[in-house]
Amino acid sequence: MSIDHLVPVTTGTSTETVMADFVSRHVGPAGDDVRHMLEVVGQPSLDAMCDRAIPGAIRSESPLRVEAAASESAVIEELRGFASRNTVLTSLIGLGYYGTVTPPVVRRNVLENPAWYTAYTPYQPEISQGRLEALLNFQTVITDLTGLDVAGSSLLDESTAAAEAMSLMRRASKAPADAVVLVDERLFPQTIAVMRTRAEALGLPLAVADLRAVSDADSLSAAAGGKAVVGAMVQYPDATGELVDWAPLTAAVHDAKGLVTACADLLALTLAAAPGEWGADIAVGSAQRFGVPMGFGGPHAGYMAVHRGLERQIPGRLVGVSVDAEGHQAYRLALQTREQHIRREKATSNICTAQVLLAVMASMYAVWHGPAGLVAIAQRVAGLTTALRRALVDGGLEVETTSFFDTVTVVVPGRADEVTARFAENGINVWRVDADRFSVSLDETSTPATAQAVLDVLGVKGSDGALPGAGGTGAHGIPQALVRTTDFLTHPVFHAHHSETAMLRYLRRLSDRDFALDRGMIPLGSCTMKLNATTEMEAVTWPEFANLHPFAPAEQTVGIRALIDDLSAWLCEITGYDAVSLQPNAGSQGEFAGLLAIHAYHQARGEGHRRVCLIPASAHGTNAASAVMAGLKVVVVKTAAGGTVDMDDLRAKVEAHRDDLAAIMVTYPSTHGVYEDTITELCELVHEAGGQVYVDGANLNALVGLAQPGRFGADVSHLNLHKTFCIPHGGGGPGVGPVAVRAHLAPHLPNHPLAAEAGPESGVGPVSAAPYGSASILPISWAYVRLMGGEGLRHATQMAVLGANYIAARLREHYPVLYSGHDGLVAHECILDVRQITAETGVTVDDIAKRLVDYGFHAPTMSFPVAGTLMVEPTESENLYELDRFCDAMIAIRGEIEAIRAGEVAVGDSMLRHAPHTALNIAGEWDHPYDRTAAAFPVGVHAADKYWPPVSRIDGAYGDRNLVCSCPPPEAFEG
Amino acid sequence: MSIDHLVPVTTGTSTETVMADFVSRHVGPAGDDVRHMLEVVGQPSLDAMCDRAIPGAIRSESPLRVEAAASESAVIEELRGFASRNTVLTSLIGLGYYGTVTPPVVRRNVLENPAWYTAYTPYQPEISQGRLEALLNFQTVITDLTGLDVAGSSLLDESTAAAEAMSLMRRASKAPADAVVLVDERLFPQTIAVMRTRAEALGLPLAVADLRAVSDADSLSAAAGGKAVVGAMVQYPDATGELVDWAPLTAAVHDAKGLVTACADLLALTLAAAPGEWGADIAVGSAQRFGVPMGFGGPHAGYMAVHRGLERQIPGRLVGVSVDAEGHQAYRLALQTREQHIRREKATSNICTAQVLLAVMASMYAVWHGPAGLVAIAQRVAGLTTALRRALVDGGLEVETTSFFDTVTVVVPGRADEVTARFAENGINVWRVDADRFSVSLDETSTPATAQAVLDVLGVKGSDGALPGAGGTGAHGIPQALVRTTDFLTHPVFHAHHSETAMLRYLRRLSDRDFALDRGMIPLGSCTMKLNATTEMEAVTWPEFANLHPFAPAEQTVGIRALIDDLSAWLCEITGYDAVSLQPNAGSQGEFAGLLAIHAYHQARGEGHRRVCLIPASAHGTNAASAVMAGLKVVVVKTAAGGTVDMDDLRAKVEAHRDDLAAIMVTYPSTHGVYEDTITELCELVHEAGGQVYVDGANLNALVGLAQPGRFGADVSHLNLHKTFCIPHGGGGPGVGPVAVRAHLAPHLPNHPLAAEAGPESGVGPVSAAPYGSASILPISWAYVRLMGGEGLRHATQMAVLGANYIAARLREHYPVLYSGHDGLVAHECILDVRQITAETGVTVDDIAKRLVDYGFHAPTMSFPVAGTLMVEPTESENLYELDRFCDAMIAIRGEIEAIRAGEVAVGDSMLRHAPHTALNIAGEWDHPYDRTAAAFPVGVHAADKYWPPVSRIDGAYGDRNLVCSCPPPEAFEG
Repeated sequence: MSIDHLVPVTTGTSTETVMADFVSRHVGPAGDDVRHMLEVVGQPSLDAMCDRAIPGAIRSESPLRVEAAASESAVIEELRGFASRNTVLTSLIGLGYYGTVTPPVVRRNVLENPAWYTAYTPYQPEISQGRLEALLNFQTVITDLTGLDVAGSSLLDESTAAAEAMSLMRRASKAPADAVVLVDERLFPQTIAVMRTRAEALGLPLAVADLRAVSDADSLSAAAGGKAVVGAMVQYPDATGELVDWAPLTAAVHDAKGLVTACADLLALTLAAAPGEWGADIAVGSAQRFGVPMGFGGPHAGYMAVHRGLERQIPGRLVGVSVDAEGHQAYRLALQTREQHIRREKATSNICTAQVLLAVMASMYAVWHGPAGLVAIAQRVAGLTTALRRALVDGGLEVETTSFFDTVTVVVPGRADEVTARFAENGINVWRVDADRFSVSLDETSTPATAQAVLDVLGVKGSDGALPGAGGTGAHGIPQALVRTTDFLTHPVFHAHHSETAMLRYLRRLSDRDFALDRGMIPLGSCTMKLNATTEMEAVTWPEFANLHPFAPAEQTVGIRALIDDLSAWLCEITGYDAVSLQPNAGSQGEFAGLLAIHAYHQARGEGHRRVCLIPASAHGTNAASAVMAGLKVVVVKTAAGGTVDMDDLRAKVEAHRDDLAAIMVTYPSTHGVYEDTITELCELVHEAGGQVYVDGANLNALVGLAQPGRFGADVSHLNLHKTFCIPHGGGGPGVGPVAVRAHLAPHLPNHPLAAEAGPESGVGPVSAAPYGSASILPISWAYVRLMGGEGLRHATQMAVLGANYIAARLREHYPVLYSGHDGLVAHECILDVRQITAETGVTVDDIAKRLVDYGFHAPTMSFPVAGTLMVEPTESENLYELDRFCDAMIAIRGEIEAIRAGEVAVGDSMLRHAPHTALNIAGEWDHPYDRTAAAFPVGVHAADKYWPPVSRIDGAYGDRNLVCSCPPPEAFEG
Repeated sequence: MSIDHLVPVTTGTSTETVMADFVSRHVGPAGDDVRHMLEVVGQPSLDAMCDRAIPGAIRSESPLRVEAAASESAVIEELRGFASRNTVLTSLIGLGYYGTVTPPVVRRNVLENPAWYTAYTPYQPEISQGRLEALLNFQTVITDLTGLDVAGSSLLDESTAAAEAMSLMRRASKAPADAVVLVDERLFPQTIAVMRTRAEALGLPLAVADLRAVSDADSLSAAAGGKAVVGAMVQYPDATGELVDWAPLTAAVHDAKGLVTACADLLALTLAAAPGEWGADIAVGSAQRFGVPMGFGGPHAGYMAVHRGLERQIPGRLVGVSVDAEGHQAYRLALQTREQHIRREKATSNICTAQVLLAVMASMYAVWHGPAGLVAIAQRVAGLTTALRRALVDGGLEVETTSFFDTVTVVVPGRADEVTARFAENGINVWRVDADRFSVSLDETSTPATAQAVLDVLGVKGSDGALPGAGGTGAHGIPQALVRTTDFLTHPVFHAHHSETAMLRYLRRLSDRDFALDRGMIPLGSCTMKLNATTEMEAVTWPEFANLHPFAPAEQTVGIRALIDDLSAWLCEITGYDAVSLQPNAGSQGEFAGLLAIHAYHQARGEGHRRVCLIPASAHGTNAASAVMAGLKVVVVKTAAGGTVDMDDLRAKVEAHRDDLAAIMVTYPSTHGVYEDTITELCELVHEAGGQVYVDGANLNALVGLAQPGRFGADVSHLNLHKTFCIPHGGGGPGVGPVAVRAHLAPHLPNHPLAAEAGPESGVGPVSAAPYGSASILPISWAYVRLMGGEGLRHATQMAVLGANYIAARLREHYPVLYSGHDGLVAHECILDVRQITAETGVTVDDIAKRLVDYGFHAPTMSFPVAGTLMVEPTESENLYELDRFCDAMIAIRGEIEAIRAGEVAVGDSMLRHAPHTALNIAGEWDHPYDRTAAAFPVGVHAADKYWPPVSRIDGAYGDRNLVCSCPPPEAFEG
């Protein structure tokens, strides 16, 4: 037998060291490779390099007080320990969170599949066609079920979606500034609370009232306290389970030129008339019960749908259909040029991260069941609820709810506490509405035995035979006028994949179209696409975490909260802050919460007039949007020639706004990829003027273990657990954006009306629907910190910095590195300047980005923070092989550019301009001046392992192509 | 936003039914599609079709007495119930099964990844390059560690590998027929027992003795009882833990022209001198402890390595390097033409299924850790063992073992039972060697705390400080003469993937090269590539099943054995037999066990002379091989024109061998894909002559719920749980081949020396190392039966038959269907006759098979059972879309063939001959008369989802290409 392929390595000179722990698995380069990289960078050691790169004034002197690294097996054991301290009861609490069955084929092949969960946001649509199709399916599910025209590709949760709808109605309204948003008092309580938090910051008046009786101008005016009306928000079915016919209210609101938003339950909509059918203008809600576990509150996909005419107002992302260069259908993010780039005069939403992974799961739940399957599930739930209600009434109990889908409220005067406790003793959580009432919500997982158990706890006899078999009875509690009569999910995709084999292949096919971390590097500046280790992901799907209701009694959630406490303490130690809230379920929400805390702090000191927020030109776009949402006024500070904050301009702006200065928001190291020396001076300047310092934690990967914002002058930061702390990007979400603060801001962190333990009593209210936001993915970050230990975290940071500097060193002669600090060192990312190349040859950053796909890479960040540049962040997880592969590709591309400069080929005829090349291109007619092999198999591409983009360059608007995080530059908000 | 891609389906006429249960997920077609298929087949209903196809005499009259189907959630609950009834102790039992840490990245991305586990055996090497590379890595691990030249790509387990080595030594030996195989008495007891079972059937004398003192001709002769010596088998380290220097023995055996086989521990070999270095000719063992859980005994990859000169004798599969049509390196199964096709005069091995999935895992464990990492693990184990031994001795205990790696035997005169029990009470299983001794084996998962716990149980004091830290001391118990000094795993692949990111990408890259069920249909006749549902796979990785030692006390394994009892009862009901043994870990082993039972039965009745086994010409190759292994004499029965057994020839053969007739082995429905009417007559004929009827269960997928072999005349069958009962093929294993018998054969089923409950006392001995064979994958088949219920199983069978008949009906006019029964009906597969096409055009079955790759399909079975034909089995899991896609492809290929017949293109220039086309072909120079698009994107191939084979047609020998299961036709064994 031939074993020719086995070329032995000379081991005599090898200094390969044993890699025994997780740190060496997480960090790509080791041993000789590290030494080689240091040599190329021209630094004697990691420590020396970091000492040169990072200003001495901010460097931490002591090691992180985080436990030493534990092995992967030990971490799994510890996680099992937390899990075992949770008590999972049958949840009949409802309120937006329901038991559901994740189709096993979807769990294994989406939620547990790196091809899906390690993908980035689909900003490069040519290599994201799989998840874009899945998101288009999601949008179709939402529009079909809500009966509206256009839906976005997910929001963060139902409550924030409702708050976004509230803002949207305000934006779309011509009513006077003091006009109110009417809110039915039977909205889910957490939604009302989140809306209050948002409305208060915006100065938008809410009127919470019983809207059931509103049916004409008079009753509307009465509900609005005589004010003009922006619109109305209703829940369908409402928190008590009642399925109200909102048509009369809707007519009245429309007559008053207002809009109506329905917070609607997707499963109910398979049987009940769609909001769009009875006149609602907007529908929002959660897709949780479409196969996504409750997970102690999230993450789940929130949704929003609107009628045509409002689509340019939708916050968040929208997937649309377009064509590629060959005229073939292709998906892409659509309408990216709307509000955030056109409506520069004011901020609307800071939504950036979505819930892609969860939206994909929910869409696949619908693909798996199809309309008939969904109806069958809903009928089973509705039938069982009907039977339960009848048995309760027959048993002499007073049931308040008369029209219903899955929830009934039972009146037990003065006994609700006792009854609720008795249920818990019997393994069931019901919802205590108030002292006299409790409610019961059934779901997909409920069986006749569940209903029987409810009756047993209540001591209701004689119910034998009253409950239907598992198949249901066909009866339901939906009034005739609200019974759905229209088709939905008629598209073939909801009819073609009902066998597991077909579904498996569909999921594989879609994921094969995409480029994720499991194929190669995604060198996105500031998005930190590092390893999402299997061990970190493990606990997410454990039932002890996955099946907890967010409003379950605290004594049942001891384990997950202990984990949250651990993680909170570690995050404080890592950042140098004193307190943290894990509630914000995206970075943008963390920003918002941090700014709310600043405002509340000023207010508490009688300085509520301080509303000016300074933001450097290079900041992340969300910064400004969040500031506006928090009621602050954005003032932009200029960037100096070297990429640093222009200190003179800063001094001038501080002086100009001294009396009204609320805060400065800076990113550190800056988005220019440099550790600025001026950071401490900057903090002092702002503090001296009475302002607070907000450090955006997007670049925390350059600081962990080396410097602590909370110690070098900052008052508050949000972190991105999906960047620095290994929560995978999921193709565009979920994210977690904790907000960390120094002690004086701690009283102003978020809290939650349904979970006193989730925040300070003096807090600003909730910013997410669930008390701990996206709690079910927190074990990922917990595991990361536990696996790395303090030293490991520090090593990772150093290696991230080394990786960026290695790339900068190798590419500097081919592409100018725009900014650098001492010794020419960058931080954890570097900006490659393409502007001169573009000026000389016409080759754009787009051309390079798309050509990189032919080489088997995801593009770096394009044109952020500086137009015409590429920002590269390799992270510590990429090994030397991959770093070199990337550098070799960039250098080879530079060679291709030289051929254009030399006049050998016109840019319009070049491989760069026609990139990416699909297999169909290659097989088809060929009239290019270069050959097919050069196009498809450039240097470094192994033919057998070639990644083929499924479509060629997509014909999108220029504005789409220049986006970074779909969030606008801060100037957009100045005014 | 455009939603043009959403073409609505007309639902007015839809009769789509709700698919609420697992049956509709497992079975591909439903509703209208089934009606359409019946129409095409020309049958009014499923029942009517089956009534026509299956002889009335064998049809079951009553439904299967198998519980009604349970939901997926309920089945998971029930499985958790079984799991909870197992008690997982820390196992220090050893004896070939050790605690190990499966790298999480390997578990998730191999063991839990359909791309790996649903692949078929790599007989189509062009679309199997990923796993072939992994297997080549496995072979490299084995050759490097054993110090031998050539290793196969896995055997079934260590004990059967040892038995194969025993046979190999006999084959290679020129010693007289009564020459003995010497077996050291300290081989693992299960290995000695399996060898005894095999040796007895073959009439090969074994001499089990203490071989440690053998060092010259005299001592050798004494050990051999004066007989000539075939060879010697030794364990390294042996069952007591002793690491014996076998060089003197080896020299003596070599002087006597014998061979030496070492049963060697792979982890020990990282520190101890390799068997090849001290002279062993053959090494066998298990790769279990390289990251594969114990799983109550299996499956794990057994291995065999030999020195050059013996490679043509290796049983099982061997991966080799070759080139493709373009001269690029490509992997393929090598030496397929050796013994089984050349040495037609006698059978050697019936090995067919290997343990590919487990070999891949073990190879990836080595890739993940690299040589330095493996050494570090081994040093930790050895250091801890050394420290433990010292503490035991210091504590006053007598330790028998002096040279050792991980195991020591402790002498406790008369107290072994008591001590073992005390250990169990403290959560530890040790091995009770005999009344006076117990042994302790440490492993990768052992920590100083483990060693301390051992000391504590024994009441050994003062050991504080005696135990090393987790890092070990560097001390070990390996004598200087046996310390390894040579390098291993120097190939780059063992040095390149040590970060998780790199490993993830390597695994993805390899799996992307392969075509598995997650991409499309694998229509292999008689290999039944049906759905392997996620829910079925779920329990395999649960610790309660994965971490059980096969020799753990019975009271700790109550759950898994209860599951085995359930499954056994169901298999009896399904087959109509009275008893079953799940011990055989491949179909071939089931055959062997079944034939042993027949022989033992005759023997028990004083008819041991009955040794003639009739086998039809169309039988699976393993049948004959197994018969020879069981000591029977093969007589082939002819096939009649219609594909049925030639009854006249059968009568003649029965008559001719009436007195010596042991059995007939038939497959039913036959490998010709037809339900033969003559089966009952056949059974009567053989019974009347005193013979037994063996029905090969390979085609049981055509019978389940419709007919029971045990009721229609058969006495024994083996089943293939990896065909009919959903255990995935794993890329070429694992398999499970239970043997089921009627009551009179039940006393002769396999048993096991270390587990009385695993078989009858009167049994034939073990045929696998573990009492229940590959126990950890039995939950898969259990779940399948439980999810389907009796009715569902029957429906699946009917749909499998409908699928095959649909294909036959659609393709009949394009390719003649070779055999069919009543109404032109086939069973669950059909044979397409290509011989006329080949004669007329030169297009071969190979050309069609490889061209199917361009269309995105795995080829059907080629040239079995009839040369020049394709055998197609779609299974019930393929939906109408995929069946039609296949038929359309075959019809389009027929069109391509017509162009050749019409003289438009020469066969040598045709797409068929140049198939499969790689992306590199398409991009490169093109001098074909057809265009690139036609080659790469034929009808039905969606450009975005194209599967590209990584290599073009591989240059292999004709004999390789015409194989079916790497097992020879029965004629090879006649004589």
